[in-house]
Amino acid sequence: MSLRHHSERLRVRTPGRATIDITAQVQEVVARAQMSEGQCTVFVHHTSASIIICENADPDVRRDLEAFASRLVPDGDPLFVHTAEGPDDMPAHVRSVLTQVSIAIPVTHGRADLGTWQGLYLWEHRHAAHTRTVTVTVLGE
Amino acid sequence: MSLRHHSERLRVRTPGRATIDITAQVQEVVARAQMSEGQCTVFVHHTSASIIICENADPDVRRDLEAFASRLVPDGDPLFVHTAEGPDDMPAHVRSVLTQVSIAIPVTHGRADLGTWQGLYLWEHRHAAHTRTVTVTVLGE
Amino acid sequence: MSLRHHSERLRVRTPGRATIDITAQVQEVVARAQMSEGQCTVFVHHTSASIIICENADPDVRRDLEAFASRLVPDGDPLFVHTAEGPDDMPAHVRSVLTQVSIAIPVTHGRADLGTWQGLYLWEHRHAAHTRTVTVTVLGE
Repeated sequence: MSLRHHSERLRVRTPGRATIDITAQVQEVVARAQMSEGQCTVFVHHTSASIIICENADPDVRRDLEAFASRLVPDGDPLFVHTAEGPDDMPAHVRSVLTQVSIAIPVTHGRADLGTWQGLYLWEHRHAAHTRTVTVTVLGE
Repeated sequence: MSLRHHSERLRVRTPGRATIDITAQVQEVVARAQMSEGQCTVFVHHTSASIIICENADPDVRRDLEAFASRLVPDGDPLFVHTAEGPDDMPAHVRSVLTQVSIAIPVTHGRADLGTWQGLYLWEHRHAAHTRTVTVTVLGE
Repeated sequence: MSLRHHSERLRVRTPGRATIDITAQVQEVVARAQMSEGQCTVFVHHTSASIIICENADPDVRRDLEAFASRLVPDGDPLFVHTAEGPDDMPAHVRSVLTQVSIAIPVTHGRADLGTWQGLYLWEHRHAAHTRTVTVTVLGE
């Protein structure tokens, strides 16, 4: 059996800096791809947002992750020259580079084969609300 | 020639916080896939472990990497609210997000085409021993 | 239509620590692959350089990113034991692990489908000039 390709573009609305669970939307794309085995890749088309896999049971984990990132890359850091778009602009770019914009997940039995506690999140790094573009690419059979 | 898919699940036993070399195991999966050219992706199904590529010649490199991570994301940091599973629980999640859970490597001449000094490691972030699940997905011809 | 594979190896000369724009070179590989839809993966075969996606409009963003990385992982940090190759050796390995050596990007209409402000960069972490090897793998139809 030879491999096929299926991809879809998602629009994810964010309320400003937050982690937004996109697991169900990605699983729906994988289901529509109608492949049993293969791989799906989730890619965000922006430089101030990330795709992450994070613990999905206790919301405090994502609260703590945000607290850590805010301390590690402080808004308004005087180190930064690129401040035209505001004190959260350059930190958003740094947070994006320190995490990922693209994650590949195996597809098994027709589903993105995430571990029990793994959720897929779009992490919005800007304080303002945005609509973010995400592409899900499935390669499989 | 059309592409094929091959995947295998590995179980990796960890002694607690450490980097475990999985290069040979991944190369064995690629060899069993019997493809000359393509790509293999290594994915860990957990939120408190990572897949990393690191220098493979001097063990001090991984000792220093661990020292750096322990200083950057200290166990028992009072910043963290999610502490139910112990002082290393939330740091493990942060370390996982700051590194990767999934890495794609080209396959050339039937092997994962790592650079001379590149080793593939599973990085256990918890202090207790675990058995971690890893999937290796090979797409190629 | 069944999927095909195309890959090319690039040599990227670096002037020492810097971010080098490789977007055009990667797009040329994708164009030569002559596929309309699929995915391309950019992989660097070294442990002291990274592949990143970063804002491509204002050079200050990459200047600030470098300033942040230099502060986060200081050269000559007394924490590090692995110093044989100089004060920037171990920081280079840490910077590589904290970012990525491999990024997968969707291919749409025959191009790597980067967002408007997304550029692909090889980030050289050593102070000396190097020639770095990068493989671009395209899977698609």
